[in-house]
Amino acid sequence: MRILLSNDDGVHSPGLLALYDGLKDLGVLEVVAPDRDHSGASNALTLNRPLTVEQHPNGFRSVDGTPTDCVHLAVNGLFELPFDRVISGINTHANLGDDVIYSGTVAAAMEGRHLGLPAIAVSLVNNGHYHYETAARVVKLLLQQEQPLVLGPRSILNVNVPDVPWNELKGFRVTRLGHRGKAEGAVPVTCPRGKARYWIGAAGVGGDAGEGTDFEAVLEGYVSITPVHVDMTRHEALGTLEEWLEGVR
Amino acid sequence: MRILLSNDDGVHSPGLLALYDGLKDLGVLEVVAPDRDHSGASNALTLNRPLTVEQHPNGFRSVDGTPTDCVHLAVNGLFELPFDRVISGINTHANLGDDVIYSGTVAAAMEGRHLGLPAIAVSLVNNGHYHYETAARVVKLLLQQEQPLVLGPRSILNVNVPDVPWNELKGFRVTRLGHRGKAEGAVPVTCPRGKARYWIGAAGVGGDAGEGTDFEAVLEGYVSITPVHVDMTRHEALGTLEEWLEGVR
Amino acid sequence: MRILLSNDDGVHSPGLLALYDGLKDLGVLEVVAPDRDHSGASNALTLNRPLTVEQHPNGFRSVDGTPTDCVHLAVNGLFELPFDRVISGINTHANLGDDVIYSGTVAAAMEGRHLGLPAIAVSLVNNGHYHYETAARVVKLLLQQEQPLVLGPRSILNVNVPDVPWNELKGFRVTRLGHRGKAEGAVPVTCPRGKARYWIGAAGVGGDAGEGTDFEAVLEGYVSITPVHVDMTRHEALGTLEEWLEGVR
Amino acid sequence: MRILLSNDDGVHSPGLLALYDGLKDLGVLEVVAPDRDHSGASNALTLNRPLTVEQHPNGFRSVDGTPTDCVHLAVNGLFELPFDRVISGINTHANLGDDVIYSGTVAAAMEGRHLGLPAIAVSLVNNGHYHYETAARVVKLLLQQEQPLVLGPRSILNVNVPDVPWNELKGFRVTRLGHRGKAEGAVPVTCPRGKARYWIGAAGVGGDAGEGTDFEAVLEGYVSITPVHVDMTRHEALGTLEEWLEGVR
Repeated sequence: MRILLSNDDGVHSPGLLALYDGLKDLGVLEVVAPDRDHSGASNALTLNRPLTVEQHPNGFRSVDGTPTDCVHLAVNGLFELPFDRVISGINTHANLGDDVIYSGTVAAAMEGRHLGLPAIAVSLVNNGHYHYETAARVVKLLLQQEQPLVLGPRSILNVNVPDVPWNELKGFRVTRLGHRGKAEGAVPVTCPRGKARYWIGAAGVGGDAGEGTDFEAVLEGYVSITPVHVDMTRHEALGTLEEWLEGVR
Repeated sequence: MRILLSNDDGVHSPGLLALYDGLKDLGVLEVVAPDRDHSGASNALTLNRPLTVEQHPNGFRSVDGTPTDCVHLAVNGLFELPFDRVISGINTHANLGDDVIYSGTVAAAMEGRHLGLPAIAVSLVNNGHYHYETAARVVKLLLQQEQPLVLGPRSILNVNVPDVPWNELKGFRVTRLGHRGKAEGAVPVTCPRGKARYWIGAAGVGGDAGEGTDFEAVLEGYVSITPVHVDMTRHEALGTLEEWLEGVR
Repeated sequence: MRILLSNDDGVHSPGLLALYDGLKDLGVLEVVAPDRDHSGASNALTLNRPLTVEQHPNGFRSVDGTPTDCVHLAVNGLFELPFDRVISGINTHANLGDDVIYSGTVAAAMEGRHLGLPAIAVSLVNNGHYHYETAARVVKLLLQQEQPLVLGPRSILNVNVPDVPWNELKGFRVTRLGHRGKAEGAVPVTCPRGKARYWIGAAGVGGDAGEGTDFEAVLEGYVSITPVHVDMTRHEALGTLEEWLEGVR
Repeated sequence: MRILLSNDDGVHSPGLLALYDGLKDLGVLEVVAPDRDHSGASNALTLNRPLTVEQHPNGFRSVDGTPTDCVHLAVNGLFELPFDRVISGINTHANLGDDVIYSGTVAAAMEGRHLGLPAIAVSLVNNGHYHYETAARVVKLLLQQEQPLVLGPRSILNVNVPDVPWNELKGFRVTRLGHRGKAEGAVPVTCPRGKARYWIGAAGVGGDAGEGTDFEAVLEGYVSITPVHVDMTRHEALGTLEEWLEGVR
């Protein structure tokens, strides 16, 4: 099995190293990751400049671009042999609920899926213990399943793992994405040169973190596994929209 | 009606001006857009620095950030009164099929929806004629419908308009997103200082552009309207995934 | 006379427009300026990506790079005919004393000189009145002098103009660069996500703003004109250094 | 002796590690360097956003900014105790002649001098052997001189070291900056999406590389040491300029 690893925390991130160590027995691993932290990069693809790829002494490759750039280049030109899987992570923080829209970790997995490969995004629900090896072992277990997972096309798995030793995990839960509460307001600041600026406010709390959500699962100590689709069409709304448009036509 | 306009081509873009002109009779318009072209920015949110907002002589505001930043700041702090709608565009190029994953235009609309507001992304399927006024009129028509459109939560409309005069439009079609073919391989180049670099390859052609897709609609001269969801959970895969996980637990 | 105009406040800056208006009778003007504010960019040259040049409806060209990039491209490839002069500005704020080391406005002029062309950097010592036309008229006057100015190679003029109507100027003074006092300490801030960051502190006051300096001249209402060199060798220290090195050899 | 080390190749650069190893017996070393390659950044100072400082396992600190930012923050706020020296390097490529105007390595040293500290910029004239230890030993020797070097205020040393083993060095030479020949023209390219772009052309060859220059010294196998000033006034041109201005006043 040839596995492509990427992330959004950058090529020097401890989560990426732990993922590499945890999966190296499964086959050939190649790492192509951003040269620095790109959290929040979402699916941004760099089209206005060519990208530089650098190989590091440990064999990892870094790209001066986004997580999506990394996976795109790796699959579409950097290697002669094709890949079988794309794994993105281990992200240093949770990617729960609406986070997945902005997450570079999830975006790297989506790009893999988009290019035809089964893909998993994995994040540590960090409480400061940094048990990356637990998250790596979760991914290894999923990859070792004999029975193939048929999710349907254009789907990935978004996995969030509590930051505890392996034997303290409560188990695995299939979840839906919850939703964070309303983000806090923008935070105005004045720079030392007197100019007004605004920080994007902190992520909201509350919202939908109830039964069946990924929030609930990790809070209760379970690994959360959510199927996330790459096909953005809201098929179930097609009919409603048709009717509504009658008035226009 | 208070309408927030944004885009990803930047505050000086002709498509944004045309949208403003076309909608100004509908109520109060406020414009908050990136200070330069952010095509391909997707849902990237700027968390590592505060943002600068500048007001231009024409009343438009620009932000030194992404389309998502613009809508987030506008809804979460820049204005006292709340908005009723978010319209993003008019993008200078089509946002069809898989484009929506990377599109900053669509991301701005998604951010609006995410913050609780009905939102539309609108793009011109550009063949060089630049009939922005046609696209603006399409949006105006949609906003003027008496009957409210109930799409369900967490959905937006992605609208692509052929670049022709209004009277040459064939009509409106509700569509699903098609899919582009495999992207072309990365393009290696050598910079004048001898270093190897790679361009992300051009978007693929072919793929699924068949019946019912947005590709087909615009090709045949129709306005394409696709409902796009912001909820990324693949609900229909939850059962399959449950079964599969039995082996793990 | 073919004159290249650039700046560091960006192609849409009012100071650039005023400079264009003020000089347009002198010959053929071409404008190549950054697509957005690049204050503080110094002599940074973009080598890791190719640059995009865009022509605007008013004929101005913008580059997605630094002021130095703009002048470099303009002189080395964008135009068939060579230029006779490079003028950079009108900067919206003073470039006095140590500012010139960091200034993108001065850097654009230095790049012009470096490429063989007489060059002037011009800044408005802004007190909020924005008399750009005064600064433009100062530059025009300098360019219209019949007698050529022989500064020696590798020198430019750094001009700072008080922000007053033309008839309130006290006159012109040849000055040396003063020196700002010690910059204020870095300003620690905590971002909304709890991470510590630091603003570069405000520029220092005091220092050497005494007799003969550019600070003194503008404070007293005069246009300050300082010859600035592009040759960085400290020739007068060569002997001292030779002696000192005896101990090493 | 408390020595601040920085560079423009980034905190992970082998030249920086070699410099640290070479100087660690001289006193307390602190490293504050950019989080990635900032070659060509010149004296750019980041004023439009706060900077993030990160401490690495080896004790080095990285800043998400330019070399000038690093030295500025280190001297103006990150440490309680003051520094005695700033050393910038070891740069992976030569900084000869006009390179110093654009060089981030030299800029870091200039910022140190500007803030009151004796400073040295050191570069390896790289022919692929990467004898960083030779360059580190050169710097150590200079710092160990008993007799203090009085260069006059606002000057730094720009040191270029041939990439050979220590015992193959021919000696030390005090030099003036040479000048590169005219840069090659901008190189037009077309990106995969059909848009025209331009690379800044390669640095010119030829020019003034003659007797007494830094180019000549390193070509002949000597360490080149050039005094470079931070005071940009061209004092010797003040008189000429005065006369010339008579016509204006």
